[in-house]
Amino acid sequence: MNDFSSSMAFLQRVAEVAEQEGHHPDLHLEGYRNVWIEIFTHSTGGITERDLQLGARIDALARGGRVV
Amino acid sequence: MNDFSSSMAFLQRVAEVAEQEGHHPDLHLEGYRNVWIEIFTHSTGGITERDLQLGARIDALARGGRVV
Repeated sequence: MNDFSSSMAFLQRVAEVAEQEGHHPDLHLEGYRNVWIEIFTHSTGGITERDLQLGARIDALARGGRVV
Repeated sequence: MNDFSSSMAFLQRVAEVAEQEGHHPDLHLEGYRNVWIEIFTHSTGGITERDLQLGARIDALARGGRVV
């Protein structure tokens, strides 16, 4: 990300997608502009279809695409 | 925090305070409602007066107080 505020704006959009999916990743903003996101299903102890779907939508966001 | 959206709302307020202070902490939201925040001045390799000031304002936010 370019800076702190654009990183926060991105995380806000990620959070909106997460709410839509009903699936909540861990979010991190470090060094004022480095964002990383962890997606994991704790109940199964692994990666599920829901994780992949959320990841794909976040990936589209990060690429600046529209997310529907 | 109670849930993911209130955690994000809190981080958003923290980010606004950080922008006002021109000092940007590391932000983490884990396990959908656990927020932790790291405040550190990398250039000096330690804790400075600015860190303490930002910390005090974030602490006030966390207690639900008004932050001016």
